[in-house]
Parts: sequence; structure tokens; C-alpha cells
Amino acid sequence: MKKFEEEQNLLAKICSPADLKKLPLSQLDELCEQIRKTLVEVVSVNGGHLSSNLGAVELTVMLHYVFSCPSDSIVWDVGHQAYTHKILTGRYNQIKTIRRSGGLSGFPKRGESECDAFDVGHSSTAISAAYGIAQAKQLAGDNSYTLAVVGDGSFTGGLAYEGMNNAGRFKRNFIVILNDNKMSISHNVGAMARYLTGMRIRPGYLKIKQRVERGLHKMPGIGSKIAGGLRHSKSRIKNLVYRNTLFDFLGFTYYGPVNGHDVEGLKKALEAVKKVKGPVLLHVVTTKGKGYKFAENDPKSFHGIGQFDIDSGEVIADKKGFSAQFGQCLCNLASINDNICAITAAMGLGTGLGEFVRQFKKRTFDVGIAEAHAVTFAAGLAAKGLLPVFAVYSTFLQRSYDQILHDAAMQNLHMLLCIDRAGVVGEDGETHQGVFDVLMLNGIPNVTIFSPAYYEGMGSALEESVQNLQGVCAVRYPRGCEGYRPDDYSTESINYDIYGSQKAKVLVVTYGRIFSFAAQAADELKQQKIDVCILKLCRIKPIDQSAIGFASKFKKILFFEESVQNGGIGQSFLMQLAKLDYKGKFVYTGINDEFIPHATVAESLANLGLDKAAIINKIKDNK
Amino acid sequence: MKKFEEEQNLLAKICSPADLKKLPLSQLDELCEQIRKTLVEVVSVNGGHLSSNLGAVELTVMLHYVFSCPSDSIVWDVGHQAYTHKILTGRYNQIKTIRRSGGLSGFPKRGESECDAFDVGHSSTAISAAYGIAQAKQLAGDNSYTLAVVGDGSFTGGLAYEGMNNAGRFKRNFIVILNDNKMSISHNVGAMARYLTGMRIRPGYLKIKQRVERGLHKMPGIGSKIAGGLRHSKSRIKNLVYRNTLFDFLGFTYYGPVNGHDVEGLKKALEAVKKVKGPVLLHVVTTKGKGYKFAENDPKSFHGIGQFDIDSGEVIADKKGFSAQFGQCLCNLASINDNICAITAAMGLGTGLGEFVRQFKKRTFDVGIAEAHAVTFAAGLAAKGLLPVFAVYSTFLQRSYDQILHDAAMQNLHMLLCIDRAGVVGEDGETHQGVFDVLMLNGIPNVTIFSPAYYEGMGSALEESVQNLQGVCAVRYPRGCEGYRPDDYSTESINYDIYGSQKAKVLVVTYGRIFSFAAQAADELKQQKIDVCILKLCRIKPIDQSAIGFASKFKKILFFEESVQNGGIGQSFLMQLAKLDYKGKFVYTGINDEFIPHATVAESLANLGLDKAAIINKIKDNK
Repeated sequence: MKKFEEEQNLLAKICSPADLKKLPLSQLDELCEQIRKTLVEVVSVNGGHLSSNLGAVELTVMLHYVFSCPSDSIVWDVGHQAYTHKILTGRYNQIKTIRRSGGLSGFPKRGESECDAFDVGHSSTAISAAYGIAQAKQLAGDNSYTLAVVGDGSFTGGLAYEGMNNAGRFKRNFIVILNDNKMSISHNVGAMARYLTGMRIRPGYLKIKQRVERGLHKMPGIGSKIAGGLRHSKSRIKNLVYRNTLFDFLGFTYYGPVNGHDVEGLKKALEAVKKVKGPVLLHVVTTKGKGYKFAENDPKSFHGIGQFDIDSGEVIADKKGFSAQFGQCLCNLASINDNICAITAAMGLGTGLGEFVRQFKKRTFDVGIAEAHAVTFAAGLAAKGLLPVFAVYSTFLQRSYDQILHDAAMQNLHMLLCIDRAGVVGEDGETHQGVFDVLMLNGIPNVTIFSPAYYEGMGSALEESVQNLQGVCAVRYPRGCEGYRPDDYSTESINYDIYGSQKAKVLVVTYGRIFSFAAQAADELKQQKIDVCILKLCRIKPIDQSAIGFASKFKKILFFEESVQNGGIGQSFLMQLAKLDYKGKFVYTGINDEFIPHATVAESLANLGLDKAAIINKIKDNK
Repeated sequence: MKKFEEEQNLLAKICSPADLKKLPLSQLDELCEQIRKTLVEVVSVNGGHLSSNLGAVELTVMLHYVFSCPSDSIVWDVGHQAYTHKILTGRYNQIKTIRRSGGLSGFPKRGESECDAFDVGHSSTAISAAYGIAQAKQLAGDNSYTLAVVGDGSFTGGLAYEGMNNAGRFKRNFIVILNDNKMSISHNVGAMARYLTGMRIRPGYLKIKQRVERGLHKMPGIGSKIAGGLRHSKSRIKNLVYRNTLFDFLGFTYYGPVNGHDVEGLKKALEAVKKVKGPVLLHVVTTKGKGYKFAENDPKSFHGIGQFDIDSGEVIADKKGFSAQFGQCLCNLASINDNICAITAAMGLGTGLGEFVRQFKKRTFDVGIAEAHAVTFAAGLAAKGLLPVFAVYSTFLQRSYDQILHDAAMQNLHMLLCIDRAGVVGEDGETHQGVFDVLMLNGIPNVTIFSPAYYEGMGSALEESVQNLQGVCAVRYPRGCEGYRPDDYSTESINYDIYGSQKAKVLVVTYGRIFSFAAQAADELKQQKIDVCILKLCRIKPIDQSAIGFASKFKKILFFEESVQNGGIGQSFLMQLAKLDYKGKFVYTGINDEFIPHATVAESLANLGLDKAAIINKIKDNK
């Protein structure tokens, strides 16, 4: 019985793309079904990006069927769709370890396989990176293919356009696959999305037009043969060539749209674009969540998801935490202040803006995956007296650095940056860690930063930022829910709080959720008759002078922060102490010049020396 | 006689755009001539952006003639073309102070005039900002116009595309003026540039087509009248309406191209686009440097320029300094290492790559004003084993923050960032100060940073970065030439050097060009029998442990840096000292959470406490 099952399992036979090529075309639908089953099973246990992976199964299979990795290079944009690629490139046996500490990453990684051409995680980078790879190949006289597989959502990002503009005059073969699933994470916005919709619904979508053939005849080599073949074919291939598409204007020959779930059609289309000289864009239409009904019906919820029950589609644990609380706070503030507007870069759901969109549609702006534009646009709103609130994940805010500095802070414009997923984020791993935003913002004048530990402090910081402050106000909070809160810690202030015994010899200074661990540590040590005092910062820029003064009275200061060390608050704090000529001992724990790999949040914090146990040890070492 | 001259001076009569509107159309050419004369005179003395300002004179005059600032809002992209705008909006009397300490800024500033809708300096921000302003007006029920005036060069930047994509579905009037002078600072690159060239040379450029009229007839209000007028007009207006332009696909109605030096044609075109509902793009073709023959013949050299002689067009002082030295070093390295490639974001000339382009054309990539793409593209090259060198101004590198972090450093790809104009830059002022790059890079893992004081150290750091290092290597150097070098300072090392008496009580720690001032200070103090020791860092990340150890022996450490304090090297240095349990005094001088306005470099450094005199005072205060 087992043997029979193994024979049936096509996936177990595929140790490399070469093995895939041995399968006949007729078996590929079955292979895709097995891949889908694997994807649903793995993600239901490990969490991950389901909808986009399900949508790209046939496309990925056919890319590896027609092209030859690793000599041909495929750069996956974002990487939300690369699980099938991992399965087909020798990692099927490890796929169950995906997103787990020590296991496969949820994103392409050059370190995992030579078939991963480029590491990704953020959107819209693939065309630029692939074009670099293609230019390097040209200089080396290497004639292999280079492809960028880019979702339609990623085309709302300016980097994709910069890449297209630069590659549009390339003289050699360069292939962009537009994986059009009609969505970013949420539904797509902007002129490009409308344009693609227009392309999809053009009459003739299902017919092969003569133009295709004319185009093919012009192609060098076997173009005419393919054209001849297509004319007599009854396949469902939907290669339509339109002249004067937007992509043509940017120097790309446009082919499509093609049904992204038809393996035969995909094969023909991919073989066709292989023959084109110069940059070419193949428009592939896919269905997000394809093949798993719950994901197909609700692709947004199954985009990035935790554990879920396969049969019912129900998420096992769905704690919205800070994001939801933020959304509620903002609604409350907006209901009494007409100037408040919310901005999202295609992350309305993830950042907790769902209710705001419903209540204040006119004051909500989804700008697409365009974080740079989001901030400059917000600066424009602020210049006319509105109060824009940009809700964004910490890691994506990195894409707005110059805009925050040059367009917002330099004019001292009043706006809020509400920074979700601040700190380590767990299974998404190194491309998504929110540990650089403090560094970024700490050095920019006219910026105030709050990093509360609890919903309460977040609410107060938002209120303060809206009602009493000027300039750019950043409120940052972690993924998930608030942590341990001591019974005798009554009110979270927006500036700083002191917890524990002021007679303690050791002062712990920290901010954000690390306070929960520090307070747990202090409470436990109290049982052991070890006094600990905690200075809990909430406003971390500027740091209150009296907080520094308070700290300077202690002979030992242990500073803990969930941010990178260089440019972090620890260094600013120490500098302020130096101004007071502090002579005591300063012991720092933070993130020391390293990228943090995927693991659970708890594992990461433990590794960084930022959990309760590590704090206890540090205090004991220094008492 | 004087009275007669004053009467002739049309500019003196214009205290606001309202005064301009009083002039008959027939006098505007004369006005433009007077403006050009003023521009050439002022820039020949104060330096500044000449070519782009000369190209936009008629356009600016007609914008203010047809629209009404400040109720209508004009956002100037970059701001290199806004001098005429300043002259016409009440600042003619101050124009001679432009770019001087306390005088007018060389860029639009909301603080200077309510006619300046948005502060700018970096490229490609105008559409995003103007769209924010337009949305704010819509929410407030304000029907005034909002315009973004954007050069064709700025359209190579992804932010412009993000703005277009977002604004393309706006339901109200929103006007983008494409000021097409066929150049960025250098000649334009990429598919968009080729596309615009195609538009300019289309047959029928000089004729009015029926399509214009059809377009006008469809417009609400007086469209038909205008159309009628145009049909019978013999003017040189070049309004041609093309359907299916790239801009139409992005949701903008395209008008043009129009001759940007024909006031009558511009008037008609601007009045026409005023009537269009929804987003509209007017393509205006201008000549960079127009009206001043030396600038017209060589617009690149007159783009941003210092003092020059009006009659001969000769630049009075043209010291290339670090940029030229860098270019030479890179050529030398590339001649023995075939993997070295140079990348520029439309700044080949400014960054000293001229000679490299000539010698290694195939290995040079001008990617357009697209700093984000530049880095991700470089990462692609590096992933295939090339060694990309991105030559960029410090201030523009801010636009690559996420790409350096996420696309380059995270993969530990080997590339060089050669950061020109590091430190204060003088007259360009706050939007261009290079004081944030250290902060940005200091917190990113896998990045090494060098900040030499002299050409020699720059050369050694480049060599070291190419030959011996991994990951992202940044070499930063200031605008202009190397400064004072003591006779007894023989070799600049890439790590650190010690200068002066090691018996001194006070240790000065610094890096980059500030060493010149510190050494001058030490030499002067030596005459006064005051011993000073200087620890001169060249590699500022990571800081050498033995340098820290050396410093820790001193009771007083005075740290000077030409970078922002938070996230700067001073704080990192202090943190390293704290690890050694340093008990001495640490006195810091850097840039303390403020933007630095325009002034000469010398004035700025004096204001910041970073020149020789300030260092002497600080040493005396702490000896």
C-alpha cells in the first residue's frame, strides 16, 4: 500500500527541475494538484503565504518546465509565491520546516539553493535585480535567460517602474512575467490596476488573433513554426498581441493575457517569449487562492495566515492585538477631528484600518504598494492643513526614509506614522524584522517617537500626537498582543514610568514590549529578595531630561532594546548620561549589527537576550 | 535718466502675480528678457542652477499669468527652475541674496512665501505632494487649481510614477506640466526618454489637428469656444492631442507638445488644460539654458554652477577635488579588475565618472534619477559576481535606504557606495546636506564605512574595499578639495591614525575633513604649549577595538563629527567606551537634531562648532 502511494507521489520524484522536465505534459495537472495539497497542508500547520502560492502553481511548474534553473535565473518579486519553486528545486523534503527556526525560509534565499537567484521579501525589486543579473550575464557572454516574476500589485511600486524604464532599452532577451491576480494583498488600486482590468476584459480574450501570428512570424528562428502551430491549434492559449500597450511604450513587447492555470497554454506562451529579442512582458492571469475554496473565496484573509483548519478554513488563533486597537483608537480620534486622514500602502487590513475605511471612506487613501509616495502624498495633505496618519509596517517604512526626512520632517509638517510590526516579527524572518525604524527616525529632526508597551500607552500617544504635538509623530507597536502587565502598574504614561523599588542598586531601562519581560523579571527577582527598578520609556525621542537625571543616580544601568544598537535609543541615552558626566556602569543589550533569521518571536527574543530569562540573568550578573 | 531706467524695468513693478497679470501679453517677451538678464547676473555672482531656470522663464511667467497663486498651488519638482517664480512672487528685491546665508534659498520654501506651495530639493516629489494638496482641497470644497511642474528627468524616478498611478483616477482637475528639456542634469536615459523623443518628433508637431478641437468640444464650459478660436488662429500653438499615449494609460489626458518659449501658445495651452476635468498632463518642450549662449551650448556645465564670467562664460573657480580624484582612482582600479562596474543615477558628471564613462563605456550604467533602482540593480550585478560601484551624493543616497539594507546588505553582496558631498554642502542648503548617510549606514549589518580626510585615504579605502573586503563598502568624502594637512602627518591609514602628542591630557577624536581643522587647532595650540592628541578615524564602521582602547586611556575625550548626533559615530564610540567601563569625560560636538540652512561650507561648519576656532575653544574649555 505504501509503495503504491509513493509511486503516486510525483513530488517525491522531483529532486531538481531536470526531474520535472522528464514528466509528460499530461501529468502536470496532477502534479499541480499534489503541490496544492502540499501547500495547503504545510501552511495550515506552519502558517505562511497561501493565496499567492496557490495562484502561482501552474505558472511555476511551467517556468521550470520551459526554462532551466539554475543556469536560467528566475527572480521572484516579494517571494510570496515561491513555495512551489522551493518544492521543485530540491526542497520538497524540507518544505514542512518552512518558516520554522532552522528550517526553510518563507522567502527565496540564495543560501538555500543555487536556483534562488536573488533574496527577496519586499515588493517591486525583481525587475531591477533581474536586470542587473541580465547585464552581468551579457558582460560575461552568458546567453542564458533571466526572468522576473512580478505580481500586478508590485507594479504599483515605483521601483518596478524604475526597473522597467531602465531595462526597456536593453538589446537582449529579458523576460518579465506579470502575474496578474488582480490584487496586491488587498484589492489593487490606481491607474495601473484599472489599466490591467481593461486589458483582461478586452473582447477577443479567448481567441487567437492574427496579430499574434504576425508577431511570431517576425521573431527570429522558429517563430513562424510556432505561429503556424498556433493557427491550427485548438488549445486555450490566449496569446493576444496588442500594439501600443503601456508596456510597449516602456520598451517591452507585450504578450497576453494568458490563462495562468492552463499548463499547455503557458507552455506555448513561455516558449514564444523565449524567442523574442529584447525585453518582453508576458501577462499571465491567475486566481489568488486557486484550488482551495476558502482561499479562493477570501484571498485577503488567506494571504498571510497563521495555523488554520483545512476542512473548515477557520483560523486557529487570530489575535489582532495592537493593529485592531490602533484602528479603534484612530476611529475615535477621527470622529472628533475632521482633519484626520488615514493612508495605507495596500495594507489596510493588516494595519487594522478596516473599520476606519468603513466609517471614513472619503478620508482613507490606499495608495498602492508605494510607501515613498504615501509619505510625500501625506506631506501634501499636511501642507494644506489636514492631519494624515500613515499606518505601515516597520519594515516597509524603510522605503520612505528620504520622504520622511526631506518631504515631511524638513517642513515640520504635522503627520503621524503609525508603525505596526515594530520589533521582531517571527516567522517572516529577516526581510520583515521591524528593528530599523528607531534608527531611521531617531536621527531625523522634528520627529517625536513613542514606543508604548500596552494598548493604553498607544492610545495616549496617538491622542497626544494628534492634539498637542507638531511635526512628524511616530507611534510604534509590536505585532500581536500586549504582554504581561503587573498588577501594581496602574497607568502607562506617554513619557516615562518608574516601576519597582527605587532603592534598587540596578536600574533597568527599556521601552516597548520588552517592559513586559523586564517587569516579569523584576517581579520574580523580588521573590528572591533582589530589588530591581525599571525606567520604562514610552517617548523615546526626545528622551525626557528628568528620566536621564533619574537614571544617573543609579550605579548600574542595564539597557534593553528591541532595535539595532547603532542609532538605537541606548546610544542616545548613554550620550545624555555622558552629558551629566555619569560615572556608573552602563550595560547594553540590543541587536548588535546582525540580521535576525526566521523563528518564533519568543525564540528570537530569547536569542537576542531580550526575554524574561535573559533579563533575569543579566540583572543577576550585575547586581 | 534713472527714472527712465526704472520705468523700463518691468520687474521692479511686479510685487505679486497680480501685478504680472496687469501687463499686456505683448510685453511678456520683454519681461522674460529682463528675467533672463537678472538670472544670469545673479547666478554669475552667487552660483546656482542656471540652465534649468533659463529654460523655464516663459513657462513660469505664463503659469502666473494664467493661474492665481497662492490660491492656486504650484509645486515645483526639484526646484532647480523656481528662481523666476521667486522673482514674480514678491522676491525680486531679495533675489541677489539667493543661496547666501540669511538670504533666499535656492529652492522653494513655504517659509519664504505663501506662493511656495511645498518645499522641494530632491527629484520626482511634485506629483505626490501636489496630489496630496489637491485631495486636501477637495475635502475642503476648495475649487482652486493644483499644478505640479515636473522635468522630464524627474520622470525617470519611481516616485513620479507612484504619484501618477495614484492620481490617475482622481475625479477632479489636477494638472501636471511636463517641462521637457530633453535632459536630467545629464542627457536623459531609459525608455521614457526615448518615448518622449518620439513624441517630440512626430509629424504634425507644428500643426493644430482636428483632434484638439474634438477634445476641446467635449470639455465642459467654454471648450467649444476655445476650439473655435483655435481653428481660426494662426498662432504657433502646438496643441496636439494624441490618444493612447503612455500618460493616457495612466489616467492622464495628454496635451502637447507645446513650445515652451512661445508665450501666446503657452497661454492658450494653459487655458485649455484649465478646462479639463480630471488629471491632465501638458507636455511643454523647452531648451535648457535658453537665451544665454554658453548655457544653451553646454547646459550640463551650467546646470549647477559657481561664479562665472558673463561675457566669456568661464567659471571663475572650478575645483573638482574629491570627485575628480575618485574618478581617477576608480579608473585605475577598473583597469586591473574587469568586474568593476560604475553606476550613476543621472549624475555621472557631478560624481566624477566622466573619465570612467570614456574608458569603460560597457561597464557604466546611468540608470536615470532612480537611486532605489540603482542599488537593487547593483545588487543584481553583484549576485552574478560583478563588483558594482554606485557613485552618488550623500543626500540622494537617502532614497536607497531600504535597497541598501534589504537588497544589498542582507545578502552580504559585495558592492561599493561612493558617497560624494558627504557632510555640509554649502549654498544648496538643507535639502542637500550630506549629514545623514552615516546614521543610515551605521545601523545596517554587513556594511563597512570609510570616511577619509584626504585623497590618499580615499584611494586606499577604495582599494581596500575592492580587493580585501566583503559586503557593502561605503567610502564617503566631502564636496570640494582636501583641506590642511600637517607636514608631519605622513600616511593616511584606512583604519585610524594618531596625530599629536600622546602625552596630552585631551584626546580629540574625529574623522573625515574635520581632521584638517582639528590638526590646525592642535598645531596652533602647540605654539601655546598646549598638547593635544588626535585620534583620526578613517574606517568608522566597524570602529577598531584598539582605537577604542587607545582612547580609553585619556581622561578627556572630545569627539567632533560632521554628522547628526543620533546614530552617528560619536554615540557608537561612546558605547564601545562604556563596554570598557570608561570613567573619563566624553564631550561631543556634532549636529544636534536640526536641519542646516544654506550658507557657505565655512559658515556652516563654524555655526556647528566644527571649524578650527571652535575646536580650539572646546579644547581650551576642557584642558
